[in-house]
Amino acid sequence: MITPIRSLLGSTQLAQIRSLLDRADWVDGRSSAGAQALEVKRNRQLPADSTLAQQLGDLILAALSRHPTFISAALPLRIMPPLFNRYEAGETYGLHVDNAIRFLQSPGQAAATALRTDLSATLFLDDPDNYDGGELQIESSFGAQSIKLAAGDLILYPASSQHRVTPVTRGSRSCAVFWLQSMVRDSSQREMLFDLDQSVQSLGSELGQAHEDVMRLSGLYHNLVRQWAQT
Amino acid sequence: MITPIRSLLGSTQLAQIRSLLDRADWVDGRSSAGAQALEVKRNRQLPADSTLAQQLGDLILAALSRHPTFISAALPLRIMPPLFNRYEAGETYGLHVDNAIRFLQSPGQAAATALRTDLSATLFLDDPDNYDGGELQIESSFGAQSIKLAAGDLILYPASSQHRVTPVTRGSRSCAVFWLQSMVRDSSQREMLFDLDQSVQSLGSELGQAHEDVMRLSGLYHNLVRQWAQT
Amino acid sequence: MITPIRSLLGSTQLAQIRSLLDRADWVDGRSSAGAQALEVKRNRQLPADSTLAQQLGDLILAALSRHPTFISAALPLRIMPPLFNRYEAGETYGLHVDNAIRFLQSPGQAAATALRTDLSATLFLDDPDNYDGGELQIESSFGAQSIKLAAGDLILYPASSQHRVTPVTRGSRSCAVFWLQSMVRDSSQREMLFDLDQSVQSLGSELGQAHEDVMRLSGLYHNLVRQWAQT
Amino acid sequence: MITPIRSLLGSTQLAQIRSLLDRADWVDGRSSAGAQALEVKRNRQLPADSTLAQQLGDLILAALSRHPTFISAALPLRIMPPLFNRYEAGETYGLHVDNAIRFLQSPGQAAATALRTDLSATLFLDDPDNYDGGELQIESSFGAQSIKLAAGDLILYPASSQHRVTPVTRGSRSCAVFWLQSMVRDSSQREMLFDLDQSVQSLGSELGQAHEDVMRLSGLYHNLVRQWAQT
Amino acid sequence: MITPIRSLLGSTQLAQIRSLLDRADWVDGRSSAGAQALEVKRNRQLPADSTLAQQLGDLILAALSRHPTFISAALPLRIMPPLFNRYEAGETYGLHVDNAIRFLQSPGQAAATALRTDLSATLFLDDPDNYDGGELQIESSFGAQSIKLAAGDLILYPASSQHRVTPVTRGSRSCAVFWLQSMVRDSSQREMLFDLDQSVQSLGSELGQAHEDVMRLSGLYHNLVRQWAQT
Amino acid sequence: MITPIRSLLGSTQLAQIRSLLDRADWVDGRSSAGAQALEVKRNRQLPADSTLAQQLGDLILAALSRHPTFISAALPLRIMPPLFNRYEAGETYGLHVDNAIRFLQSPGQAAATALRTDLSATLFLDDPDNYDGGELQIESSFGAQSIKLAAGDLILYPASSQHRVTPVTRGSRSCAVFWLQSMVRDSSQREMLFDLDQSVQSLGSELGQAHEDVMRLSGLYHNLVRQWAQT
Repeated sequence: MITPIRSLLGSTQLAQIRSLLDRADWVDGRSSAGAQALEVKRNRQLPADSTLAQQLGDLILAALSRHPTFISAALPLRIMPPLFNRYEAGETYGLHVDNAIRFLQSPGQAAATALRTDLSATLFLDDPDNYDGGELQIESSFGAQSIKLAAGDLILYPASSQHRVTPVTRGSRSCAVFWLQSMVRDSSQREMLFDLDQSVQSLGSELGQAHEDVMRLSGLYHNLVRQWAQT
Repeated sequence: MITPIRSLLGSTQLAQIRSLLDRADWVDGRSSAGAQALEVKRNRQLPADSTLAQQLGDLILAALSRHPTFISAALPLRIMPPLFNRYEAGETYGLHVDNAIRFLQSPGQAAATALRTDLSATLFLDDPDNYDGGELQIESSFGAQSIKLAAGDLILYPASSQHRVTPVTRGSRSCAVFWLQSMVRDSSQREMLFDLDQSVQSLGSELGQAHEDVMRLSGLYHNLVRQWAQT
Repeated sequence: MITPIRSLLGSTQLAQIRSLLDRADWVDGRSSAGAQALEVKRNRQLPADSTLAQQLGDLILAALSRHPTFISAALPLRIMPPLFNRYEAGETYGLHVDNAIRFLQSPGQAAATALRTDLSATLFLDDPDNYDGGELQIESSFGAQSIKLAAGDLILYPASSQHRVTPVTRGSRSCAVFWLQSMVRDSSQREMLFDLDQSVQSLGSELGQAHEDVMRLSGLYHNLVRQWAQT
Repeated sequence: MITPIRSLLGSTQLAQIRSLLDRADWVDGRSSAGAQALEVKRNRQLPADSTLAQQLGDLILAALSRHPTFISAALPLRIMPPLFNRYEAGETYGLHVDNAIRFLQSPGQAAATALRTDLSATLFLDDPDNYDGGELQIESSFGAQSIKLAAGDLILYPASSQHRVTPVTRGSRSCAVFWLQSMVRDSSQREMLFDLDQSVQSLGSELGQAHEDVMRLSGLYHNLVRQWAQT
Repeated sequence: MITPIRSLLGSTQLAQIRSLLDRADWVDGRSSAGAQALEVKRNRQLPADSTLAQQLGDLILAALSRHPTFISAALPLRIMPPLFNRYEAGETYGLHVDNAIRFLQSPGQAAATALRTDLSATLFLDDPDNYDGGELQIESSFGAQSIKLAAGDLILYPASSQHRVTPVTRGSRSCAVFWLQSMVRDSSQREMLFDLDQSVQSLGSELGQAHEDVMRLSGLYHNLVRQWAQT
Repeated sequence: MITPIRSLLGSTQLAQIRSLLDRADWVDGRSSAGAQALEVKRNRQLPADSTLAQQLGDLILAALSRHPTFISAALPLRIMPPLFNRYEAGETYGLHVDNAIRFLQSPGQAAATALRTDLSATLFLDDPDNYDGGELQIESSFGAQSIKLAAGDLILYPASSQHRVTPVTRGSRSCAVFWLQSMVRDSSQREMLFDLDQSVQSLGSELGQAHEDVMRLSGLYHNLVRQWAQT
């Protein structure tokens, strides 16, 4: 399931973030790349342990925790701190698959926590009119889908898919990217829960919370989560 | 899930069946019992390969195939031919568990087919006023439940439960019993599908078949069956 | 599986707890209710973050960790801090289903931990002679079961069930309630492990720990836990 | 996974089939439609029990059994006999989901066999230049994909998806459609097996059948099938 | 699990079979080999459709159906007709893995039935003193195990393992080999059921069938089969 | 799967560890044994909370985290702190099965963490020439395997197996033992991932990282981990 999350950030937050990013110290994206990524990654990034990356990351995590569509679609268990990338003209990230396991270092904890990357997310920080190219292309047997959203919008897609960022040919494209482990590993189960939640919400508005079928479907939702969730 | 299926047989069919059973040759129930059942089974039964048992069994299978509540609750894949039992005064069947696997001999097939007994069923053939005792008692951690239904009604219950028939103290109790393998092995999944089907039916009546949520929930039902059914 | 845990608390502890609760500041139960609960919840409760609730909760958690029947039946992985409810005459909690996921805030940890509510528990704090009504009713296809235990006893039941507290018509009913995530999600698997553990214990007493079958069944228990437990 | 199977039928077979279909007796597609399909299905079809439908169906099943890409992508366990549809100008089939279970009546067998519809298939019988519209549109969160293949090509797609046939605006579109149950229920597992099979084939050609990694990956393929296949 | 099944055939049956095999028409084992087997298979075999192979196969299948250890260890759902191999001096079958799926053609059925090869079996027909070499070697991370049993004994081993027959250096080695699909796919689950069945049998003898723990463990056995068996 | 991990520790580290162990205060191994172990455990051990045990344990955990074969074979999620045992002449540890669940007390955390013991590990600290007996014997239906490795080597084996340490008849045998929970519970899945990882490594060396099949198999590895890993 590829799910757009609209207006995660508002225009004030975006302007503030862009202003901070314009003055930041960007480094070569290959500095953190593994053997396979090394050959295809051509961009710049904020060092993951920089104060700025951590501050902006916290701001994004806070916005995610308040967004009901994100919660319903992702059912997040653990979220990696966002990373910040920038593609200038000619830069690109070739076709690749994300690693299945990443390690999350929580403050004040001795050991890192393993995180299974069920979902990848890209938060667009620049207005699509301000750059050409720089599309996120996700391959699937349903064909490749090209994604370029408004600034402040986020796209959620399976980390198991092959994907690339096409070369930027004009302007500059900044974004935040992160991975998350969902409580529900299987994407078709997550999609069914998302559908059911939407029907519970809309039928609750139409028929009232106390309608017998609304109560029964709400119970079904919680019991499907009990079957499928690992926490 | 313990599910009563009301009015599987009508009064005409019942009268005809009872008349045939009254003239039948009943044999000792121990003739087909295994080592464990031998100690607790005290009743009489129709030989499984008798013409009468097969004719009456076909009649019952035909009634089951036309009963939407039975289909929705059981999602039957394979059904064993019904067996016919009679308990006279003093007779009983002590606490026992049904075997997990039975073998179904289809006409014209060389090899028997293995059948996993997910559900047990008892079809009551006598009016409950005509006998005392003879209750089907199903044990569970929710407490024992005693079941004595109207003639023509059927009770569907998990074959995994411990159960007994209490002694008949007056009159005579005839019934048909059978096992079935469901397309959906797990009883809590079967129960969720039954609930969802009921809501799809009632919302379809209330809001119309073409309502967006009715279509979405109907699709959810079919895709949950795809996840859970083995055929 | 509905499992009573007898004598979790002794009479001295009960007297002490009741004395503290009688002087406590109770608030309206609707203060923490979501949209659905708001319509059916009519009781009073201790604020979850009050010092008293936390002290009494720790006392109960300590008693649970020493009770082998509780451990064997629940196989607890994470337990929510107990909440304290009181129903005065006329108060009740209508039919509802518990949320599938709750969040556990551990002291000294930045992030809350998600907990899947596999089991619900009610610890009775008042003698059943001291109030009328106030029964915990758990719905199931096996019929509704009404539960009212001695003070100090605890009932463990599936959080997936629909349940209610019937109106108190005389006196006052205090209880502690909590949820837990089990290492073993599936209730029928948990029930099989509980049965097997009981046989290992009783056969070990009857035949000795070194009997070949006792050793084999003990190994089977541990290897079934390995198959089914998520930790 | 949406998988095109190229050139299932050759031009001679196609010409022969089209000639037979042109002289066939087509009936209204609503004659076999259920309550939901009745509102959206506007086409004509060959009666499923007509001699012609059965002859052409057998021809297609024989072609499928000889096509290695079809076998590798679908891992078919049971295939429903193909149905034949024709859309004339103005005809269409609105958005719908396929039923999860269908019943397969084998010749010489008393009972029908339940079949879980994991995959849907459409075999295009007309040259795409000979008609306008009539596209198979498959909805997914990856966006809707429109499919219109050369005559003789087949498209394989998840029966769990919502799909439609857009109105034909010129000419006539004939096709065969069928469902199948795969040995491997889960589509992501089927996709992984398909990928692995392709690598085993290409590495076998490049490095030889006796290369240690070719043998190891071939063993892995068979052992993954053992893990995932239900037969 | 590698399980020897002792004395499947008695000495009279063995003498009769050997006499028939000595006069049979053996063909080159490569006549039925696939691409990978072609390079490593050096033996002779009875044509699978010969009358003799079918008669002897039926005799072996009948013996299997009467052998409780075989039933308990394999929990067979479908068994391929046995094949007959002979290794003369210098002949061998190099390291290989068995195909995951085979097709079983039942008499009087139009379509073949797919069979998942969970277990492989070799029935030794010659006295081990009558030949040198010809050991069945099964690889595993527990090390390779070499197996050479008495005539009439059968070895049951996972079809997923790599295995070979070492060269015969003196005399001649005849055997019957076959594959089967178990009701219980997972070998560690099958092993647990085998262990539990053994304890139920031995405790039943020691304590009596009516002992509470014997009844409880017998119920556990059947309910584990219900959880794990696909029929 | 039984997997030897060669040269986890070098000779300098070993000499240092042995020197520290020779001066340590060993206590009776029965001091920490449960009821079953009490009857068969005859050895000495370092107290788990001694400073020396913790220092040496940290040294071993650090070596494990740097060893790619260990990581690939075990896919560790949580590792218990190593325990240190010594067997003098006449000492032994009889046949036993390891508990399924152990509790890991992390520094600075209030609550212990439950750990499922998927794998057991023994690190040999003494040269096998310096003692007789003291073999680790692992039972399986593939036969018992006796293991006695070089000092500094580690053996990884299923904690579900029955195993023993045979009596030491000369000299002294010191070792470190620990348990771990793997991200991948099922041992056959872990074994398939280990095989696939080895092929990805060797084909990457032979054909290059950018070869299409190397990329496809690497993606397959990560997506199988996504299917099977619990983190």
